[in-house]
Amino acid sequence: MSENDCTAADVAPFPEITGRPIRLGVLISGGGTTLLNFLDQIASGELHAEIPIVIASQKNCRGVQRSRDAGLPTTVIRGRDYENVTALSEAVFAALRSAEVDLVVMAGYLSLLQIPPDFRWRVINIHPSLIPAFCGHGFYGHHVHEAAIARGVKISGCTVHFADNEYDHGPILLQAPVVVPDGCDAEQLAGLVFAEEKRAYPEAIRRLASGKIRIQGNASSCESAGGE
Amino acid sequence: MSENDCTAADVAPFPEITGRPIRLGVLISGGGTTLLNFLDQIASGELHAEIPIVIASQKNCRGVQRSRDAGLPTTVIRGRDYENVTALSEAVFAALRSAEVDLVVMAGYLSLLQIPPDFRWRVINIHPSLIPAFCGHGFYGHHVHEAAIARGVKISGCTVHFADNEYDHGPILLQAPVVVPDGCDAEQLAGLVFAEEKRAYPEAIRRLASGKIRIQGNASSCESAGGE
Repeated sequence: MSENDCTAADVAPFPEITGRPIRLGVLISGGGTTLLNFLDQIASGELHAEIPIVIASQKNCRGVQRSRDAGLPTTVIRGRDYENVTALSEAVFAALRSAEVDLVVMAGYLSLLQIPPDFRWRVINIHPSLIPAFCGHGFYGHHVHEAAIARGVKISGCTVHFADNEYDHGPILLQAPVVVPDGCDAEQLAGLVFAEEKRAYPEAIRRLASGKIRIQGNASSCESAGGE
Repeated sequence: MSENDCTAADVAPFPEITGRPIRLGVLISGGGTTLLNFLDQIASGELHAEIPIVIASQKNCRGVQRSRDAGLPTTVIRGRDYENVTALSEAVFAALRSAEVDLVVMAGYLSLLQIPPDFRWRVINIHPSLIPAFCGHGFYGHHVHEAAIARGVKISGCTVHFADNEYDHGPILLQAPVVVPDGCDAEQLAGLVFAEEKRAYPEAIRRLASGKIRIQGNASSCESAGGE
């Protein structure tokens, strides 16, 4: 995009992080494969980040073990232990605040949270389809890919977006298409899409940390990004 | 896909056309740009087809003039001249039957038709988005691109699908993604998507004419196609 469009933008939602790694709070509910991908990218130097807190919504999910095995501070905050989503959200964001995170990264986290004002534009999510296809309430995990296969789509993909108080709703940061091969089933599609997610999610974090993301209406742009 | 998947398929909807061009009936409502693209591709030899009939839903649309200028048999059949969609559909398919078309190609045609049994799997449409995004009643022409820009998507595209008796509903034959550049508006996006449509629509017709399309449930596959 031209610089002109950038200067006309409404919101520069995220400040540049310079001279230090971006501090990520990672929210998980399941296997923690997205978390492991972040750790790989941090280890290889592709992602200049650190993870001062992982919050899991379930006690016994595999991600909790993986997170602890990796030596990450790991907290379990279960919805069932709170009266309602307001109380749950307060607990989650209090922990994230204490850990002094820059950005909250939902990594297969299944609860809808109420995002407090100081975390606006600081919570992102990834969805395994090209929003607005196959998104919203009821579309999570494998259901997304089953629906895509049932509709017979030839292109699916993934979407990184700002999280707000509705499912899969905030401005889109980045989307990546995935070709659905003939005869592909939901499990195979999940693998193909996850391969793209592994690239797209760190890329979205890098773009945010660059301070170059702008929001205009419901559309985001990035000063430095070429076409994508 | 593997041959195995093909032999397990439910329907081989379209017979191979050999030794002669496929006969297309083209339905238009507007400028006829898609029709002109077919003529270009026929002239260049990329599309082995002939167009024995063009049916326009409006008398004075630019496409009618372009079609007549190109020497194509051109018929105007307007919805307003018929009592209801059943009567309109009968008139349209009677004309297509008389012209002995193999395949009916909706090219910006805006009426929903009732497809008679002898035309099942013989009517295709192109939609300027990746179905199921931005499709269905109310999403046509520029509205599609305006909605995509308003949602801030980073990937749009086009979809060729079998037409049935609902808008944008039948099995998908082919989809092509289009990157939405930062700062792109609806008009620019329309141009980018149309560039893909110009490739995708003839390709879908070639695949049908090859006799290699199979339908299983709501999903199509093509014996010879690699990934797409």
